[in-house]
Amino acid sequence: MVNITSPLRIGYVLFPAFTSIDVFGPLNVLNLVSMNYNMTLSLLSTDLQPVSVDRTIIGGIGGVGSGMGAVSASPNFTEFILPTHTFDNAPDIDVLFVPGGFGTRNINGTQPHVDWIRSRVEEGPKLDYLMSVCTGASLLARAGVLAGKNATTNKSAFNWVKSVENADKVNWIAKARWVVDGDIWTSSGVSAGTDMTLNWVEHLYGRNESERVRNLMEWNALNQTDDPFAEYFGLV
Amino acid sequence: MVNITSPLRIGYVLFPAFTSIDVFGPLNVLNLVSMNYNMTLSLLSTDLQPVSVDRTIIGGIGGVGSGMGAVSASPNFTEFILPTHTFDNAPDIDVLFVPGGFGTRNINGTQPHVDWIRSRVEEGPKLDYLMSVCTGASLLARAGVLAGKNATTNKSAFNWVKSVENADKVNWIAKARWVVDGDIWTSSGVSAGTDMTLNWVEHLYGRNESERVRNLMEWNALNQTDDPFAEYFGLV
Repeated sequence: MVNITSPLRIGYVLFPAFTSIDVFGPLNVLNLVSMNYNMTLSLLSTDLQPVSVDRTIIGGIGGVGSGMGAVSASPNFTEFILPTHTFDNAPDIDVLFVPGGFGTRNINGTQPHVDWIRSRVEEGPKLDYLMSVCTGASLLARAGVLAGKNATTNKSAFNWVKSVENADKVNWIAKARWVVDGDIWTSSGVSAGTDMTLNWVEHLYGRNESERVRNLMEWNALNQTDDPFAEYFGLV
Repeated sequence: MVNITSPLRIGYVLFPAFTSIDVFGPLNVLNLVSMNYNMTLSLLSTDLQPVSVDRTIIGGIGGVGSGMGAVSASPNFTEFILPTHTFDNAPDIDVLFVPGGFGTRNINGTQPHVDWIRSRVEEGPKLDYLMSVCTGASLLARAGVLAGKNATTNKSAFNWVKSVENADKVNWIAKARWVVDGDIWTSSGVSAGTDMTLNWVEHLYGRNESERVRNLMEWNALNQTDDPFAEYFGLV
């Protein structure tokens, strides 16, 4: 068991066209944990405008990675959620989550997010944990905070993530549901973020709590080394 | 393969304190399908105010069902999403999804949702499919639209759902990841809704499409009869 501050201040970075389960899977876990342990939640973006889920900007992004083409039959099939803070007035955060999604392909659009992640890691206030889900690892790589670290990311977009700026400084692990390197946890694609978060809850609060939450969510978990998708996408 | 209208008009009923994966799991699936098949999405609520995810109203609701007590360490740990339509100006819908969550315990607060579901089923415009996730089945039962049907629901809240008005007219199946009865599909708790939706995508668009989406989501699916949670919660 680790030393836990209370309330534990959770932050989530949002950008247009993040993947829904990247955010709402871990938040479903944390919401259930927050019934027993005092936590706060901040949803951080460049401004306070509603943020689109899954896409709307994909039409303008080149398709890299299998199944993630630029053409869509239903370009406006999306939802919108509300941020709570801008980067400029972001509160202190203990645990920062960074999701992935089509929106990570928008390199210019996510530059403010990358810059803020870098400044928060390098200048503080100190983060206790930095977590990425799916192609959220590409933002961490671009920020330089994965240099010299082990990490993983989405398996259908693995080679794209390896191509972003500073990604060549990272030891990418192809077959892993998630990877832990110090205080940095990175998960594979989409659903893997929820497995990682459940394991992180076990790390912080013990297995009884993580299993209570997993059963309430009727979640069919994979273990850290169970990664059939690395093979499916030809990475191993 | 079934006859599919295009665009396929998806609707989702929202109420305060719905469970996040109940909504954003199936929508993650449908978003990926909507890249290949033309779909529209309407998020329906009593008004256009932002709707809270997971909770905020739980403090006022009696705790029924294991692990779902009324006391929370972090009552405001929530997110807010934006509806697109009110019930009064709801468009025609082909496929209506109804999520569950703590908010279903708010019987008075969800009565407009129950009334609208009943009127849409009984008076039209005609729905092709009616789908519930988790304790969303309690709204369908209260609306009377499950009378004489086979259905399932959340396993930790199973006995609570069986206690709501009109639930005694339903043939509740304890051990099932999801149940299909004619055009009504009901899933077990939270994550089971995503398994059901993937299976429904296979039913509509074929297995290649459902497997494409499942692999992009790196989703570890359970089959229709795989339900370890019925045993865990002592229902079988």
